[in-house]
Amino acid sequence: MPNGAQALMKTLVDADVEVCFTNPGTSEMHFVAALDSEPKMKAVLTLFEGVATGAADGYARMADKPAATLLHLGCGLGNGLANLHNARKGKVPMINIVGDHATHHVKYDAQLQSDIETVARNVSPGFVRTSQTTEALCTDAADAITAARSFPGQVATLILPADVSWGEGGEPCPPPALPAAPVADDATIAKIAEVIRASKKSAFLLGGRALREPSLLAAAKIAANNGVKVFAETFPVRIERGAGLPPVERIAYLAELASIQLADIDNLILLDAKAPVSFFAYPGKKSYLVPDSCTVHTLASPEQDTTASLSKLADLLGASQATPILQQPKRPDRPRGKLTAEKVCKAVGHFLPEDAIIVDEAITSGLMLNVMTEGAPRHDMVTLTGGAIGQGLPNAVGAAIACPERPVMALIGDGTAMYTNQALWTMAREALNVTSIIFNNASYSVLNIELERVGVESVGEKAKSQLDLKGPVLNFSQLAQGMGVHGVRVSTAEELNKALEYALSHSGPHLIEVMVPESLNGVKRKVLPWLLRSLPKLPLPLTRSLKKKIAP
Amino acid sequence: MPNGAQALMKTLVDADVEVCFTNPGTSEMHFVAALDSEPKMKAVLTLFEGVATGAADGYARMADKPAATLLHLGCGLGNGLANLHNARKGKVPMINIVGDHATHHVKYDAQLQSDIETVARNVSPGFVRTSQTTEALCTDAADAITAARSFPGQVATLILPADVSWGEGGEPCPPPALPAAPVADDATIAKIAEVIRASKKSAFLLGGRALREPSLLAAAKIAANNGVKVFAETFPVRIERGAGLPPVERIAYLAELASIQLADIDNLILLDAKAPVSFFAYPGKKSYLVPDSCTVHTLASPEQDTTASLSKLADLLGASQATPILQQPKRPDRPRGKLTAEKVCKAVGHFLPEDAIIVDEAITSGLMLNVMTEGAPRHDMVTLTGGAIGQGLPNAVGAAIACPERPVMALIGDGTAMYTNQALWTMAREALNVTSIIFNNASYSVLNIELERVGVESVGEKAKSQLDLKGPVLNFSQLAQGMGVHGVRVSTAEELNKALEYALSHSGPHLIEVMVPESLNGVKRKVLPWLLRSLPKLPLPLTRSLKKKIAP
Repeated sequence: MPNGAQALMKTLVDADVEVCFTNPGTSEMHFVAALDSEPKMKAVLTLFEGVATGAADGYARMADKPAATLLHLGCGLGNGLANLHNARKGKVPMINIVGDHATHHVKYDAQLQSDIETVARNVSPGFVRTSQTTEALCTDAADAITAARSFPGQVATLILPADVSWGEGGEPCPPPALPAAPVADDATIAKIAEVIRASKKSAFLLGGRALREPSLLAAAKIAANNGVKVFAETFPVRIERGAGLPPVERIAYLAELASIQLADIDNLILLDAKAPVSFFAYPGKKSYLVPDSCTVHTLASPEQDTTASLSKLADLLGASQATPILQQPKRPDRPRGKLTAEKVCKAVGHFLPEDAIIVDEAITSGLMLNVMTEGAPRHDMVTLTGGAIGQGLPNAVGAAIACPERPVMALIGDGTAMYTNQALWTMAREALNVTSIIFNNASYSVLNIELERVGVESVGEKAKSQLDLKGPVLNFSQLAQGMGVHGVRVSTAEELNKALEYALSHSGPHLIEVMVPESLNGVKRKVLPWLLRSLPKLPLPLTRSLKKKIAP
Repeated sequence: MPNGAQALMKTLVDADVEVCFTNPGTSEMHFVAALDSEPKMKAVLTLFEGVATGAADGYARMADKPAATLLHLGCGLGNGLANLHNARKGKVPMINIVGDHATHHVKYDAQLQSDIETVARNVSPGFVRTSQTTEALCTDAADAITAARSFPGQVATLILPADVSWGEGGEPCPPPALPAAPVADDATIAKIAEVIRASKKSAFLLGGRALREPSLLAAAKIAANNGVKVFAETFPVRIERGAGLPPVERIAYLAELASIQLADIDNLILLDAKAPVSFFAYPGKKSYLVPDSCTVHTLASPEQDTTASLSKLADLLGASQATPILQQPKRPDRPRGKLTAEKVCKAVGHFLPEDAIIVDEAITSGLMLNVMTEGAPRHDMVTLTGGAIGQGLPNAVGAAIACPERPVMALIGDGTAMYTNQALWTMAREALNVTSIIFNNASYSVLNIELERVGVESVGEKAKSQLDLKGPVLNFSQLAQGMGVHGVRVSTAEELNKALEYALSHSGPHLIEVMVPESLNGVKRKVLPWLLRSLPKLPLPLTRSLKKKIAP
C-alpha cells in the first residue's frame, strides 16, 4: 500500500496535474521521494517560491489546467504570495501543496511553526485545508482539484503535515468530475440584445476567457453587424491576438486615459470582466472609471461560458454570419540607431516568430508593445493581472513548460525583473526556449509618473533616490550568465536586431538587456497634458478614439 | 500643518526610529516625499521586500532599537513575510509601514487589493492596525512603537492608507515612554538557588538578550562557583563571543546530538529561552529534547531582565565575586591546499578582524565555524532564528547600517543566498563594509541529510535532482558583479586567503564565492553513526560532553 505522498502523487496525475513547481524542505521530503513513483509527474525545481508560484500561474494560463506547487511551510508559502495574488486576480487554477510539521510536532512551536492557513487565506479564499490523516489525504486532494478547476478557476491550498505524508495507508482518489460552465440565461441575453439595438454607443468589455479566439470572434461579429465597440480588460490573463484575429483595444492603465476611452459609451457589457476602476486612488479623482451616463450590464460572469453566451446573443442579433474585422498581417521595419523603449518594441514586432507567447511585464513600455505587435503572426500575450510585480520571468518559465514547442518572449522592466530573477536559473536548467528582454532604464520609472499623479508637489533628493536604480546600475547580462543563461547587453538597435536573430535561432534561454533612456523621463509637467500631447504621435490602437478628441 | 506622512515621519524619528528600509510603490509616494522633511531619517532602498524586512531585522539586532520598513500593500508585505517570521521568532523589534489603497478605494477591489491585516497576522500577532484617519495616525504610530519596543520586542505592523498619508492635519506624537524589563521575583530566584545547590547537574540555557556580555558574565560566574553548565540556544538572535568573553556551548541543530548534550542534565534553567525541541519531527523520534529525568525551570522569561535576575541569583549563591572562565585568544593557522568548508571556516577564524559582526547562514558549515572563531577577537554573531532561509544577506545589510564602523562577515549557503540575492545591490549602493562568503557546493546539502533522517529509504533520480543545484552551477561572483559588488570565485585555500586579505583591507562590499565539495557528501550511511564517528575528530565545543561518551 502506498504512503500518503505516493497516493497523493497518483491522485494528482490521474486528475491531469502533471507538473509540480517545487522548492522543498525537510517537511516535504516524502513528497519529493514519491516523485519517482509516478513517471507522469514532472518536477521543476525553482530557487525561490515566488518563481514556483509564478511558473504554475504561467503554466495554467497556457495549458488550461493547473500545475501543483510544492512549498515549505508558512514561510515558503509566504515567499510565493505575490504571484499567488496575481493568479487569484486572474482566476488561474493552481494547487499548492504546502508541507507542514507533523501533526504531533505543532504544539512545540518549533522554529518554522506558523499558522499556514492564515497565510493562505487571502490568495486561496475558496479552498484552504489541512489534511489530518493519511486516509483522508487523497479525498482532500480531490476536493482541492475540484475547487481549482471549477469555473472560473482558483488557487487551492492543501496543507500536508509530514506525518500525513509519510504515513502508510494512502488511498488514491479517482479524478473528480468537473461541471461545465453554464451559459447566460435567455432573459439576460434578450435584454442585452435590446440594449444593443437601441443604442449605437454600446461596448463589450472582455476579460478572462473571453479574450480567447472563440469569444473574440463572436464579439467581433456583433461588432461588425451592430456597431458595438470591443474593449479588453487592462491586464489580460491571456489574450489571443495578431494577424488573423480580431484586434481589440485594451482599457488603458492610466485612469485619465481610460476615462476618455469610455467617455462615449452608454452601455458597457461585461464578459468575464469587471467594470473598470483605477489601479490606485488619486487625490480628488474618481476611482470608478465608468461615466455616470453609462449603464453596466453583465452578459457572462466569470463562472459562465462567454463564447456560448456571445453566440446566442449573435443569433438573436442576426450577427452570426457577419464578417468580423480581422487584423491584417503587418510588421514594423527593423529599428535603427540609438535604442529607445519604442524601438525595442518595434524590434519585437519585427522579429516575433510564429506562434509565440509574449509575457509582458515591461510596465513603462507596454503601450508601444501592443501597437508594434498587433499585426505580427498570431500569438498569445499574458500580462500582470494582480499588479504584484515579479510575475513575468516566472510566468515565462511556466508558459515554456506548458508549450515546449512554442517560443516565449518575456518583456520585463528592470525593477520588476529583480523580484524573481531566480527564474533565470530554472530556464537554464530546463533548457527553456525563452528570450527575456530586460528594459534597463535604471529606474522605477512608473513611480516617477505616480509621484506626480498622487499630487506630490515638491520632490527632494531622498525621495528621488527611492525611485532610481542607479549607483550601481544593474547588469542583467552578468546576472543571466551567473545563472547559466546566455546574456548580452545591447545599446543600439542594430545590436538588438542581431541579438534577437541569434536568440530566436538558437534553442534554450537567452537574455537581452536593452539599455534604454528612462522612458518617460521627459515628464516634467503634469502627466496628463503631456500624454495627451504625445499620444497622437504614437500609432496606438487605444488612441483611435483619443485622437479624434485631442487632435489640434 | 504637516500632512499625515510628514507627521508620521517626525513621530518616528522623535522615537529614535531613524532608518527605514524601503521598497515603495504608488500608495507610498507621500511617505517617500516626506523623507526629505526629516533630515534624521535615513532611507535605504532595497530591490525586494524580503531584503527590506531582513535588513530591518539585522539592524535591530545590532542597534537594539527598531528600524521601519516601507512596504507596498499586501503583496509587498507578503514578499517580506519570511524574514518577518525570523524576526518574530527572534523577538526582534521592527515597525512595518505598509501602504494601502485610499480608504474610499478599497470597495472597488482594484488589482492590488488584499486583506493586509490577515497577511500580517502571523508575523506581528501583537500589533496590526490600519490607521483610519490622518488625525489618529501618529497615535497609532506611537502605539506601534510602544508595541515593538516593549520587552522583549516584536514586529508591529501599521497599515497606512494612501489618503491617511496624504491628508492634511497630521499631528506628530511625542515618543512613548518604555517600561523597563522586570527582574525575576525573589521566590523564583531562591528556588533556583536551592536547585543549583542541591544538584551538580544543573545547566543554564541562555537565549535572546541573555547571550550578551552582561548576562554571559553573570552566568559564567555562577558556572565557575557552583558547577552549573551553560548552554546557548541553537540559533541565537545575537551572541557576543570570542576572546575575553565566556565561551558557551550551543545546543546542536541535530536532535540526535542535542539529546546527548542534555543527557546528563537534571535541571535546565531557562533565561529568555525555551526548552529545546527538534527543528522538525522525524518518524519514531521525540520532538521534545529534554530528557524525562530533567526538570525545566524558568529564571527569566523573555519579558524579564536576564542580567539583573542572574546577578541576584549570583548574590544568593555567593558567586558574585567568582572568577568566570573566559575564552583565551587563539586563532587557527591559515588554511592550505584544496578548499573544504572546514578550511573556509578556518580562514575566517584566522582573518576575522577586531570587533566584527558575523552573520551565519551557512547551514551545513555552521558546526565548524563556531570552533574556528571561538578564540578570535571579540565579535557578535547573528544566526537564523526562525528557520526561514534567505535571512543572511539582508541581515548583513542591516547590521552594517547599524554599525557602519564595524566589519561584517556574512557566511551564506548557496541555496540560501539565492532567496534574497538582491541584498547585494543594496550593499553596493550604500557602500557597506560587508564581506559575503558564499559556500557553493551546488546542493541543498542539508536536505540530503534530512532525506535520510525522515526515513526515506529509496531515493530515485527525480528526488535527487530536487536537492542538487547543478545544471547549471550558479556563479555567485558574476551575480555579485551584476549588482555592482566586487566578486571573486576561489577554489584553493591560498586563493581564499588572498581574497579575504583583499576584502578586509578595501572598504565597501565584497563577495567571495568558495567552491567546496558538498559538505556532507560522504553520508552514505545513516547520519547519526556517521556524525558520532566524525565529530571526535573535530575540535567542537559542543562535543566536549559528547567526546567523553563516544570516544572509543
